[in-house]
Amino acid sequence: MQIMQSMQYQFSEKVSHLQASAIREILKFTSVPGVISFAAGNPAPEAFPVEIIREISAELLERNPIAVLQYGITEGYLPLRELMKSRMQNQGNFDPERDDLIITSGAQQVMELACKSLCNPGDTLICEAPSFIGSLNAFKSYNVNLVGVPMDEDGMNPELLEQALKDNPDTKLIYVIPNFQNPTGKTTPLARRKILYALAQKYNTMILEDNPYGDLRFAGKDVPSIKSMDTDGRVIYAGSFSKILAPGIRVGYGIAPREVISKMTVCKQVSDVHTNNFGQMLAYEFMNRVDFDAHLAKLREIYRQKAGRMLSGIQEHFSEKIACTRPQGGLFLWCTLPDGADMTGFCQKAVQEYKIAVVPGNAFMVSESDQTSSFRLNYSTPTDDAIDKGIAILGQLTREIFD
Amino acid sequence: MQIMQSMQYQFSEKVSHLQASAIREILKFTSVPGVISFAAGNPAPEAFPVEIIREISAELLERNPIAVLQYGITEGYLPLRELMKSRMQNQGNFDPERDDLIITSGAQQVMELACKSLCNPGDTLICEAPSFIGSLNAFKSYNVNLVGVPMDEDGMNPELLEQALKDNPDTKLIYVIPNFQNPTGKTTPLARRKILYALAQKYNTMILEDNPYGDLRFAGKDVPSIKSMDTDGRVIYAGSFSKILAPGIRVGYGIAPREVISKMTVCKQVSDVHTNNFGQMLAYEFMNRVDFDAHLAKLREIYRQKAGRMLSGIQEHFSEKIACTRPQGGLFLWCTLPDGADMTGFCQKAVQEYKIAVVPGNAFMVSESDQTSSFRLNYSTPTDDAIDKGIAILGQLTREIFD
Repeated sequence: MQIMQSMQYQFSEKVSHLQASAIREILKFTSVPGVISFAAGNPAPEAFPVEIIREISAELLERNPIAVLQYGITEGYLPLRELMKSRMQNQGNFDPERDDLIITSGAQQVMELACKSLCNPGDTLICEAPSFIGSLNAFKSYNVNLVGVPMDEDGMNPELLEQALKDNPDTKLIYVIPNFQNPTGKTTPLARRKILYALAQKYNTMILEDNPYGDLRFAGKDVPSIKSMDTDGRVIYAGSFSKILAPGIRVGYGIAPREVISKMTVCKQVSDVHTNNFGQMLAYEFMNRVDFDAHLAKLREIYRQKAGRMLSGIQEHFSEKIACTRPQGGLFLWCTLPDGADMTGFCQKAVQEYKIAVVPGNAFMVSESDQTSSFRLNYSTPTDDAIDKGIAILGQLTREIFD
Repeated sequence: MQIMQSMQYQFSEKVSHLQASAIREILKFTSVPGVISFAAGNPAPEAFPVEIIREISAELLERNPIAVLQYGITEGYLPLRELMKSRMQNQGNFDPERDDLIITSGAQQVMELACKSLCNPGDTLICEAPSFIGSLNAFKSYNVNLVGVPMDEDGMNPELLEQALKDNPDTKLIYVIPNFQNPTGKTTPLARRKILYALAQKYNTMILEDNPYGDLRFAGKDVPSIKSMDTDGRVIYAGSFSKILAPGIRVGYGIAPREVISKMTVCKQVSDVHTNNFGQMLAYEFMNRVDFDAHLAKLREIYRQKAGRMLSGIQEHFSEKIACTRPQGGLFLWCTLPDGADMTGFCQKAVQEYKIAVVPGNAFMVSESDQTSSFRLNYSTPTDDAIDKGIAILGQLTREIFD
């Protein structure tokens, strides 16, 4: 009965088109010794409150080790859920009459669960173009029709969004990152948020509002979330502890009307049962015992300085033909080369010859073959010295090519 | 433009049929004060190596806190991956020429990633009937055609399996738990494993071998895994730290040919980016510094005593008309009422009137409406006293009804 067969693996239609990105070829160079990387998206190491994490960790394992080690429930650690419900209610992001809150294994899981719960293969999901590649790949992994709507200075272009909604009456979700967007660093102003919400109402679709950086505002004033204007129950809100505590603990949360959270909970249960207890309990204890606003103020100061440093360097060293966003928060800024420039060639030359890694903008497009002349710079991960040195070198390259 | 609409949520076809189980109604009673629960599946609290976890935790956060707190890579913490590759190679479960190993957020995630990677909606996935409800729901969440093959004393019935394979030429995966199966406690002997593998070859399908309890053998001799006889690269193997270290850390692993792990890695990246670092580093340090075989010997002794205690109680108190499996390891045993008995009624009466919670067997069937006269008992979670007292009471009920 033994029939030797060389297996030919047939992957599902959902995932067979998901490929390791061509951009990885460029990112590979980021680990080459001597390369200065502006390609990451990591929090600054000095932003981690290491001392208090040590204290809390020791206490958790001393006081109630079994609760840390035993199975938890899918919805999340109850004290953390209650704390976040209360905090989010104060920010207008949680309606106790209508909403529920689930703790997830990072905010990434909110995108995955929302898409799995709401989208059939071929359904349309509209996103900003460019947008966060991790979310776009999560959507693609459910074989949706992913439609990118170009951004202007204020976020998703409303005329183009309305056209996309008309063209795709099967649109199930509009995915937006309104604060300090990844990759552009742009913030969608209140008036534009209201337009987006009104369009979602007019075309009866839901909105997935991703807000991983909202607490990291270092300039300008907070803008109300789209969730806070949700009269209909059509907004799913995603938050994260990755940028305000630590990404390695993998703790985020999703807020939506109960019926939606209930379905996402079933989907989470079959995916990873529950989020690791240590991370959840750490997040709870941390928020509960520190002056959280003072902690955030410290983080904002770190990122304000780093962003300012990078922008000063750009001002001093870059060719004037390069346009850059000036983010009011978050981790990234977005540089645009002159029309017709060979962006990919620029990024390749930067890393291979000048040893400066940036992320080519097409990494954030719905399709990597979509045209863009922009690239992303990260200022949160590199040291101050690396920012100074790297931006000067990159500036030299821009002047050589474009001046 | 404001159009007040009461949202009617339309969930995807994948998940709209996933419902909170009717069995939850019975399980709800397990948290009622005074109820003795044999319905759980948790490791015994005394099995957690709390002292050494405290030590390791403090050291990790002292020595290299940034590595714990910063982003990790999707494939998993490299030292843990290398350690597990080596350990699994020694057990015949990892072929360094062909295989790769991914760390997952619990073994549950291996089932989800394997199904997502390999199955289109409507494809057939064959499982043991009964089987682990968490895995079955993961498969259902991808809208596969889930076909249960009845078990005999040696696991999945081979004639019925072959018939199912003939009837379903689109079968992508055969899911089995060969060691101390959940819920039956049955172990599939070597000869039967060979037949299952040969049938997978004959009908050119893959096997998903789930082995969460393999290290918890307290009687009999180890049986080689199906993975260890995989000449073709058609077996995906799932392992877990939940039962040998702690489930709350959410760390498991999957082993398969590189091409398959590569696709599962992309799927994991879009789901939760990576498994929490603390859990992974804890698992690594634990295995690296303790006498792991001595640790397992201690766990086996705990479960040997608990299983023995429950079986003695059953022998003493249960009606002779109730048949029970005698597991050689794991956490569960499986009791079968006489033909024609009202199993659901029995379980309801047990919890509502006698305050003893068990899980009705239909919870583990492909459809809850599938007939079974069995129920599951767990001996790992209750205390010795609870086992003695609860089994005596349950026995009294069996005698009242069946003698």
